[in-house]
Amino acid sequence: MTEIVRIAQAQINTVVGDLSGNRDKILESIKMAGEADADIVIFPELALTGYPPEDLLLRPKFIEDNLRVFYEIASQVGDVTTIVGFADREDGKVFNASGILHRGKVEAIYHKIQLPNYGVFDEKRYFQPGLNVLVFERNDVIFGVSICEDIWIPEGVTETQAFPGGAEIILNISASPYYVGKGNERKEMLKQRAIQTYSYIVYTNLVGGQDELVFDGMSMVFSDKGKILAQGKQFEEDLILTDLDLKRLRQRRRDDPLFMHKELKTQAFFPIKLVRLPEASQPQRSQLPQRNIQPLKKMEEIYQALTLGTRDYVRKNGFKKVVIGLSGGIDSSLVATIAVDALNPENVIGVGMPSMYSSKSSLTDAEQLAQNLGIRFLIVPIKSIYDTYLETLKEAFEGKPPDITEENLQARIRGNILMALSNKFGWLVLTTGNKSETSVGYSTLYGDTAGGFAVIKDVPKLLVYELSKYRNRKAGRLLIPKNVLVKPPSAELRPNQKDEDNLPAYSILDPILEMFVEQEMSPSEIVAKGFPESVVLRVVQLVDRNEYKRRQSPPGIKITPRAFGKDRRMPITNRYRF
Amino acid sequence: MTEIVRIAQAQINTVVGDLSGNRDKILESIKMAGEADADIVIFPELALTGYPPEDLLLRPKFIEDNLRVFYEIASQVGDVTTIVGFADREDGKVFNASGILHRGKVEAIYHKIQLPNYGVFDEKRYFQPGLNVLVFERNDVIFGVSICEDIWIPEGVTETQAFPGGAEIILNISASPYYVGKGNERKEMLKQRAIQTYSYIVYTNLVGGQDELVFDGMSMVFSDKGKILAQGKQFEEDLILTDLDLKRLRQRRRDDPLFMHKELKTQAFFPIKLVRLPEASQPQRSQLPQRNIQPLKKMEEIYQALTLGTRDYVRKNGFKKVVIGLSGGIDSSLVATIAVDALNPENVIGVGMPSMYSSKSSLTDAEQLAQNLGIRFLIVPIKSIYDTYLETLKEAFEGKPPDITEENLQARIRGNILMALSNKFGWLVLTTGNKSETSVGYSTLYGDTAGGFAVIKDVPKLLVYELSKYRNRKAGRLLIPKNVLVKPPSAELRPNQKDEDNLPAYSILDPILEMFVEQEMSPSEIVAKGFPESVVLRVVQLVDRNEYKRRQSPPGIKITPRAFGKDRRMPITNRYRF
Repeated sequence: MTEIVRIAQAQINTVVGDLSGNRDKILESIKMAGEADADIVIFPELALTGYPPEDLLLRPKFIEDNLRVFYEIASQVGDVTTIVGFADREDGKVFNASGILHRGKVEAIYHKIQLPNYGVFDEKRYFQPGLNVLVFERNDVIFGVSICEDIWIPEGVTETQAFPGGAEIILNISASPYYVGKGNERKEMLKQRAIQTYSYIVYTNLVGGQDELVFDGMSMVFSDKGKILAQGKQFEEDLILTDLDLKRLRQRRRDDPLFMHKELKTQAFFPIKLVRLPEASQPQRSQLPQRNIQPLKKMEEIYQALTLGTRDYVRKNGFKKVVIGLSGGIDSSLVATIAVDALNPENVIGVGMPSMYSSKSSLTDAEQLAQNLGIRFLIVPIKSIYDTYLETLKEAFEGKPPDITEENLQARIRGNILMALSNKFGWLVLTTGNKSETSVGYSTLYGDTAGGFAVIKDVPKLLVYELSKYRNRKAGRLLIPKNVLVKPPSAELRPNQKDEDNLPAYSILDPILEMFVEQEMSPSEIVAKGFPESVVLRVVQLVDRNEYKRRQSPPGIKITPRAFGKDRRMPITNRYRF
Repeated sequence: MTEIVRIAQAQINTVVGDLSGNRDKILESIKMAGEADADIVIFPELALTGYPPEDLLLRPKFIEDNLRVFYEIASQVGDVTTIVGFADREDGKVFNASGILHRGKVEAIYHKIQLPNYGVFDEKRYFQPGLNVLVFERNDVIFGVSICEDIWIPEGVTETQAFPGGAEIILNISASPYYVGKGNERKEMLKQRAIQTYSYIVYTNLVGGQDELVFDGMSMVFSDKGKILAQGKQFEEDLILTDLDLKRLRQRRRDDPLFMHKELKTQAFFPIKLVRLPEASQPQRSQLPQRNIQPLKKMEEIYQALTLGTRDYVRKNGFKKVVIGLSGGIDSSLVATIAVDALNPENVIGVGMPSMYSSKSSLTDAEQLAQNLGIRFLIVPIKSIYDTYLETLKEAFEGKPPDITEENLQARIRGNILMALSNKFGWLVLTTGNKSETSVGYSTLYGDTAGGFAVIKDVPKLLVYELSKYRNRKAGRLLIPKNVLVKPPSAELRPNQKDEDNLPAYSILDPILEMFVEQEMSPSEIVAKGFPESVVLRVVQLVDRNEYKRRQSPPGIKITPRAFGKDRRMPITNRYRF
């Protein structure tokens, strides 16, 4: 009777659509797991296709290609039971599936039952739900396999796997996107599932950036008592090896009268099937070294999410270098710092584009930052282009006083210059707008929003400051110059302009935005929290009215529970006013 | 026993989020229906909130406000049974619902059972499905109420309403978006339902534009034999009155042995409830005049879809005037013509922005068009701005030959000029890119894609020509000048440039795009249709690679079965290559 099961969690960074690249990575991990004497190796959800493949799933050829690669992998699997996510097809229906592979064969296929269709998820658009919970028996060990959402819903798949399924180990393959605090939510939930089911829970998550999403890895193993036994790296690939002690688990179950009670009383929430698998050989093996479990602190975690999200967007889309307009302000300084951490200094180019309204320190601060980061810095003044525009438009603008038009024009000239550099040298433009600006539309469409990737679009302004200070602390020096941190934020598009001339102070704006955008609170609920009514109403109206700007802005990394993008789908044409 | 039921279909143009505006429109139609001695008045799906309200439905306050207005309407309903769509809430769950209102009361509420979650639809993101089919009996007449998708799924809600429900009249409230050929699909489907159920089918559709969607109205009434009895206007509001002859229907059912067979044999596909409603008074009334049923021809239909979509986007978003860059090419000429038809000449401004590469006729053709349309025409040359950019970028570009950078720069200067006019005068910029360009990314981001609304983004180039010729035929003169129709398409961004230098001929490109984008055919399937492999592979790669451009482009009107936008959700980061 098997007493120890060695599990290998292959926390890999897949690329959407890269079937052969993902296959190679999967085969390499299977090999490593074999060399480590693992019994089972587990990959993330849809590891073969990358996650989320979105409408690629509607292309019949894509499904076929993924199936071909799936069987190709199966044919190369040896004695390590391999659990791998792919898109299955049966009778013309597509399923989010997990294959159980062993000795060259596909032994079984599980279809995800719970399909998330909220927030950033659209799984009911693509998949049919599975109907049967599956548990497997091999070498007298019973294990269940489920996919992501399956384990989140209480009194569902997981409980059925344990009672009446008899599972001792529950393997869940996931692609759970990051936001601040998500790790703790997952931990709490998995702990509960472990305790409820008296089972080992092995949760394997994806790692890597895909468009607006970052998957943070942080795969976990819990004991049946809800104790965390192992944790994968955050924001990095990892192969996590854990030995599960079945002897102890069985002894505990025999000794615990509550277990027997639960076993007798709990009914299946779904139809369940037990699949008996042929014996596998069990290698002799030495004990595993202890893993160090040290979750990242909040600022470090967010910073790493932004770094990984940026690196993966740039690299997976085939770019090598990025270009950033450096205004001497905090937003562009933070974005440049993240870019350098993501891509190395030689791949980041800063551009200063001073105008007649730029303060003297703007250019010197930008220059100082570039020097601190060790990046190339170009200076392209915009005044003569701006003057030529005004001259050209003089007749059309006859009799009209200067207004926001002239401010936007400056921002758009800068956008054009960055795009011209991008076109000429193949550099990707990173934009620098934060979530506070993005929410209220304090930006110029085709101006400062022009670019391929919006690194901090989901980072509110106050958090921009916190992250900058965190990074300086970590550097042990003023990587981002002090003056950048202390000067009042300004767009510098007219003389002596300050953000707070147009917007409430960020200490008021940011909490209002969090309540309105992330928590769906109504203006009167926000007012009840102690914010002035006129300010609240103005802010929510600005948010609603600027949907059109956000719709044309580049994608960027989600780090909050509710980001703009596919997480929040508001109509542009919308007359609803509170 | 009632022998005639008079139905009023209120095919109204609602605005998303405009609860009080929609309420007023609904109350006005109820009044009109009463004045026309109707027994029942029927509104489109979610008439109260507008369709689709998207994530407004996630705001609890929005649901409450919509419920308040719903009960306000109910309190004002008299003897005309009123069927109106709204968002219901029960135990914290939200339903796509239809209220049955009468004499100041909500008599019943039906919850949509079939929730579409494909194409442009995301209803499973917002709604829980209803569980019960409902039929109602009043004055001895049995009628069923269903919502949009409910009637599309065969052997489902509609059949259950008839057998065992006993429905004689089936009322369906819809918000079915337009695309070419959709009207015929609906007709065929409704005819089938009428024949299958031996019932009158009364199908009431929404009319109006909402962001990317146009609802075409064209409400219909079918006899139990599948004969079309009435049809609402296309692309216009309408109140359609129809008398349904129950005496004849009942006689036929009694006489037809197949009906009795079906009644005995057919099982319910869902649980069903019969709700008995109190008697209503039946007015004396005169016979209705015959309605003329004349569906629009294909070109006229598409043209009207584009006109209504443009008018509603502009007006519902609070704009009065639009500005369009006129290049003298076919795309901008068609867009200007549509804009004039949608908004009248005084609300359309054309801008010619010649460069050193503009052919002589470009400006004169644009000027001629503006004259034909009776619109204001501004000329803003771009050469001096362009020269200043080149001078400013000289150092940065040192040693690099001219390339696409300089072409994009010209397009971006034009985009900036249009946006400056937009900012200064409050005009909305209409962009002029067609679907062929949009598919393969033959456009400059922040250049010709800069603007608020992309009128013809779902119109392939060959169809742009057809529509232009149709409009000239309708005008009985060369509204769009002949030279515009005959000259070879060109972006005019370098000397003697032609579209066909960079792209396959449109007669090859357009069919490939239709097969790939709309029909999800694989390259080898397209090649099998007789297209050269190298061309097909190049085209599909261009489509996939240019997702990032489309993501930042303005919304525009869907007229094909598959438009870019929420109809087609492709990842940007995507390494899948056929």
